Amino acid sequence: MPEQPGKQEEKRGLTARKAENFSEWYTQVCGEQGARLCDLRYDVQGFIVHRPWAFRMLRRIYEWFEEEVERDGHEPYLFPAVIPEQNLLEEKEHAGFMPDVFWVTHAGVEELERRVALRPTGETQIYPMYGLWIRSYADLPWKGYQSRITTFRNEKQTRPFLRGREFMFFETHDVFRTHEDALAQIRKDMAMMDAVAWRKLKVPFVFFRRPQWDKFKGADDTYASDTMLPDGRRCQISSTHDLGHNFARAFDVLFKDEDGKDKPGFQTCFGPGIWRIFAAVIAVHGDDQGLVLPFGLAPVQAVIIPITFAGKEDAAAKVLAKARGLEQDLLKAGYAVKLDDSAQTPGFKFNQWELQGVPLRIELGPKEAEQGMLTLARRTDRGKVKVKESELVKAIEEQARLVDAEIERRASGYFKGNTKDARSFGELKRAIGEHRGFVRAPFCSMGKDGEACAEKVKEATTAVACGVPLDKPEKPAQGAKCVSCGKPAGLVMWFAKTV
Amino acid sequence: MPEQPGKQEEKRGLTARKAENFSEWYTQVCGEQGARLCDLRYDVQGFIVHRPWAFRMLRRIYEWFEEEVERDGHEPYLFPAVIPEQNLLEEKEHAGFMPDVFWVTHAGVEELERRVALRPTGETQIYPMYGLWIRSYADLPWKGYQSRITTFRNEKQTRPFLRGREFMFFETHDVFRTHEDALAQIRKDMAMMDAVAWRKLKVPFVFFRRPQWDKFKGADDTYASDTMLPDGRRCQISSTHDLGHNFARAFDVLFKDEDGKDKPGFQTCFGPGIWRIFAAVIAVHGDDQGLVLPFGLAPVQAVIIPITFAGKEDAAAKVLAKARGLEQDLLKAGYAVKLDDSAQTPGFKFNQWELQGVPLRIELGPKEAEQGMLTLARRTDRGKVKVKESELVKAIEEQARLVDAEIERRASGYFKGNTKDARSFGELKRAIGEHRGFVRAPFCSMGKDGEACAEKVKEATTAVACGVPLDKPEKPAQGAKCVSCGKPAGLVMWFAKTV
Repeated sequence: MPEQPGKQEEKRGLTARKAENFSEWYTQVCGEQGARLCDLRYDVQGFIVHRPWAFRMLRRIYEWFEEEVERDGHEPYLFPAVIPEQNLLEEKEHAGFMPDVFWVTHAGVEELERRVALRPTGETQIYPMYGLWIRSYADLPWKGYQSRITTFRNEKQTRPFLRGREFMFFETHDVFRTHEDALAQIRKDMAMMDAVAWRKLKVPFVFFRRPQWDKFKGADDTYASDTMLPDGRRCQISSTHDLGHNFARAFDVLFKDEDGKDKPGFQTCFGPGIWRIFAAVIAVHGDDQGLVLPFGLAPVQAVIIPITFAGKEDAAAKVLAKARGLEQDLLKAGYAVKLDDSAQTPGFKFNQWELQGVPLRIELGPKEAEQGMLTLARRTDRGKVKVKESELVKAIEEQARLVDAEIERRASGYFKGNTKDARSFGELKRAIGEHRGFVRAPFCSMGKDGEACAEKVKEATTAVACGVPLDKPEKPAQGAKCVSCGKPAGLVMWFAKTV
Repeated sequence: MPEQPGKQEEKRGLTARKAENFSEWYTQVCGEQGARLCDLRYDVQGFIVHRPWAFRMLRRIYEWFEEEVERDGHEPYLFPAVIPEQNLLEEKEHAGFMPDVFWVTHAGVEELERRVALRPTGETQIYPMYGLWIRSYADLPWKGYQSRITTFRNEKQTRPFLRGREFMFFETHDVFRTHEDALAQIRKDMAMMDAVAWRKLKVPFVFFRRPQWDKFKGADDTYASDTMLPDGRRCQISSTHDLGHNFARAFDVLFKDEDGKDKPGFQTCFGPGIWRIFAAVIAVHGDDQGLVLPFGLAPVQAVIIPITFAGKEDAAAKVLAKARGLEQDLLKAGYAVKLDDSAQTPGFKFNQWELQGVPLRIELGPKEAEQGMLTLARRTDRGKVKVKESELVKAIEEQARLVDAEIERRASGYFKGNTKDARSFGELKRAIGEHRGFVRAPFCSMGKDGEACAEKVKEATTAVACGVPLDKPEKPAQGAKCVSCGKPAGLVMWFAKTV
């Protein structure tokens, strides 16, 4: 619940327009005059306070991923928040995290014998333990995860839920006997993103295989989901890394195979970006009145607002009594419902709950109460329906479907409408300059050869090469050439500016 | 689930006896040869890895407290893991935490302009924000909490789930208009401990008001729950602090009262010890075969073990098919059930699942399968009943009640049986020397005057003064004298050695 709704006297509401100034709109919607999702006034730069309205939703996103990965056989662990320095150095590419790491060096007035890092990600703390636990091929696949933790990186620029020095983390870490098994897991991770980010939250994304020059430090291959923000920038909302044998060799994650030989396991790790997915919900679905929340995510799914008039206390009492009854009925039916019986005016309440993104509003006035009717209003398109009190539960279910369908329609329309094609460097440059979003273009290679070509595009447009969809990668037209170097195009690369 | 049960080849099982060497028994039950609750081989001293069997239970304890405090109107927050140094110094007694604090001083190769502490507890990070958010008396009571976080203190000696340099944390932070409201909250906190630790987990405890010389740094009064470990030591499993105006003044947690004046709020904070409560479950209920788990806590509530014989594959297939059906029935009925169809012998499986503390075992052999019968065995007293397959769900419910009743009977018997009375210093000394547990004795004062008396007891016995029960404090007999100083006894003090 927004803290003490209705009791705050200062003016709330957004002044920025999302279409005109997305950045300012986003800041406002997250902050004090908006939906009060977080507070940036905590006195350590880049570290934010998560407020209840946001925390409840972030928690739900965590829960959904927990359900998904446990259904897929992952066991929950909790590892320490700190990592010995030596671990970070063990895998030589992964050691690239060192410049971004926070160091704990003292306890009280004493210097620690060995400084420890605040976890930037879990690989180097988890795999040494896997090395101790995993014995034989019969132990594989080994699937573990940790959830509801935070990680720490010294980011230069921070934005709430997009980039922080401390941010919410969720990571699975799996070990397989064969590379085929590892690749199959990457498709399962993609399916989990589909189940949560798209089906539950209506955040459209493409699950890319990244180019070789844009891999996680220590991975053989990186796969990542990108959504599109209202300013057209791609925003990475998950990543899965095919770690091959790199960490298994560094940390002795070995299993005794049927032939009696010790072999390194094939490893993958999957990290849905809990913050980033939430940021996408805010950014993609929100409008100039505030948040717009998918029904399943909203901490309050329906708010009941009694419409009463001064001087008519008898009628008001009846309305309120009826409203209380409806609240109980809906709670019993399993809906997150709230009766706002605060002293504010109905208009104030309408605005406030719209700002918070509550999907449905139930309006109940004296005349309606007499007639056994009430009005249901949707947050998305402001459509209203009059329904019989006795049919409220059914009506909520129906209107919730309409809300979600409208959110999905808009998000999908925006994503598709801003995904263009280009056949030449000039077209690509123009498309990225004029349009927002993704531009697809024939391209030479995802390997080392393509890096210079991608660099040339980046210099001309600031757009980066996102990769190729894992599912249904587009084929270049016959005879198509790389837009950058003119060599025969082996693939269709997606480009976009990035957050 | 215990990782890959049945696949580990090395010998598991406890060799230490709980009654003879509790400390060694506890180490064994937590570790590799026991229930694999944690791993101490993580390479930072005092920081442990939580393994799935423990993590699932700790998570459930968290969930229960989350339900309790949200039902009581607390909103969930998440604050940063780090605290600016200045905050820790703001409340002068609370600054006593400084020597135990870990410091983050560097990011990459750069020294931070201002070092920050890893959170030792939340007061000094939360109250400055409360100061910004709370405006008027109408905002009160203000109730917030954070859960599933860890805190950090540089403890010298560490034990799994009892004392760690990083440990699981849960804290509520409330602000009230009057001291009466604050005191009423302390009783609510006591009720929440009763609901979770006692009613769900069968951990007996007394909710004490602590003596003045044993308060939280910065509190006017500290209340704390103490249970009793098998070695007779008291173990604090929760604390609630009456913070008075101390932090409100230090951090400007002010509200505008009806009279228009800015006033500091009365503050309380409540911290059930998630780790400690779990440690008590392990220690109090466990036996020489391993864990003994209350039914509602167990990650697996019933394990199905098919009893099959080599050379009788047809019968074995029938048993297994039936076992799979039963597993589905019980899952549908909402029970956490697991069919152990691994290749190990039934005897091996019996031992393993007893070690893990699974409350009920379902044994199903060929003859029973033919007859539509099965055997249910209780972990607690090893009692067995034969039940009809068709009545399994009902039988599980009944046997679960018996398991919990037996756990409660034992725990309560142990606690009461080891709580004695003493009328003189000599009796007190003898009682603490000869018996384990609590000893009650007439005592002069909970205030400053009593401190020297308590010190004298401590020197002679190593026992500490735990305080006086908030609920139903005992009255000293007429004319009773303080066992320590001989002055008239104002109260009955509880003493015990402490972990």
